[in-house]
Amino acid sequence: MNEPTACEFVPTQAIAARPGGSRVHRCGPGFRWEGIPVQEYKEAAAHWCGVTRIPLLGESGEKTAFHLRYFEIAPGGFSSFERHHHEHAVVVLRGRGEVQLGETVHELAAGDLVYVAPDEPHQFRNSAAGEPLGFLCIVDAQRDRPVLIQAAST
Amino acid sequence: MNEPTACEFVPTQAIAARPGGSRVHRCGPGFRWEGIPVQEYKEAAAHWCGVTRIPLLGESGEKTAFHLRYFEIAPGGFSSFERHHHEHAVVVLRGRGEVQLGETVHELAAGDLVYVAPDEPHQFRNSAAGEPLGFLCIVDAQRDRPVLIQAAST
Repeated sequence: MNEPTACEFVPTQAIAARPGGSRVHRCGPGFRWEGIPVQEYKEAAAHWCGVTRIPLLGESGEKTAFHLRYFEIAPGGFSSFERHHHEHAVVVLRGRGEVQLGETVHELAAGDLVYVAPDEPHQFRNSAAGEPLGFLCIVDAQRDRPVLIQAAST
Repeated sequence: MNEPTACEFVPTQAIAARPGGSRVHRCGPGFRWEGIPVQEYKEAAAHWCGVTRIPLLGESGEKTAFHLRYFEIAPGGFSSFERHHHEHAVVVLRGRGEVQLGETVHELAAGDLVYVAPDEPHQFRNSAAGEPLGFLCIVDAQRDRPVLIQAAST
């Protein structure tokens, strides 16, 4: 499966290198950070919808063994139902929604911590009205490519 | 310098292995997570004060190339003024405070992102009244030991 999934979609803009030194990126309204652009993408695929990705750290010249990203899923949106060998660490920052881990669905709210184990099928969904579901997602810098399991049903 | 610094202090309890599978740890009031104990420590050293550490992920049997920790600094508290070659990614979850990066002090509030570059002297401080300064801190699993620069002044 070579089709890009929600978390690994091919950006239409390369991620620009940021200044190499220590720095603070202030968080503005609606979880947008000064000096860090939202990653643009052309359109949703059939298997994911309403996903915004902001690469916070690790992909802009830093040497970390991890990448820190912020994802937002719009109301009614969902990420790809996918699996991969690398693990996910997720911390919810805003909104409500749910995560499917294997065959189990867990409700999510701000502050909740999610661990996605190797090869676990998973999908994040925003079933709430109004507010985006926003979460940090940390992954190893060196990682395998996600495999799409099936098209999500809404 | 072999004295443990605030971020690497020696816990009095080993970190217990958690179930290997995918899971959700719900965030309760005051940023405490179900199933994850607060790390106990005996007393503050002269060079740090009021620091609580919660190991969220990566130190309990997971295979990630990173460790995700949550730190809280009580009002008036501060972390060690230290440096190390490994980088820090920090996201503030609650409260207010400041971070010293080299010779520059930056105000911090919820949502702010901090990148601490290799070998940058740094210290987190809670100068606000009332609420703890709480933040996620992500580091490489394989990392060098922090070096204490000087005792903090209050």
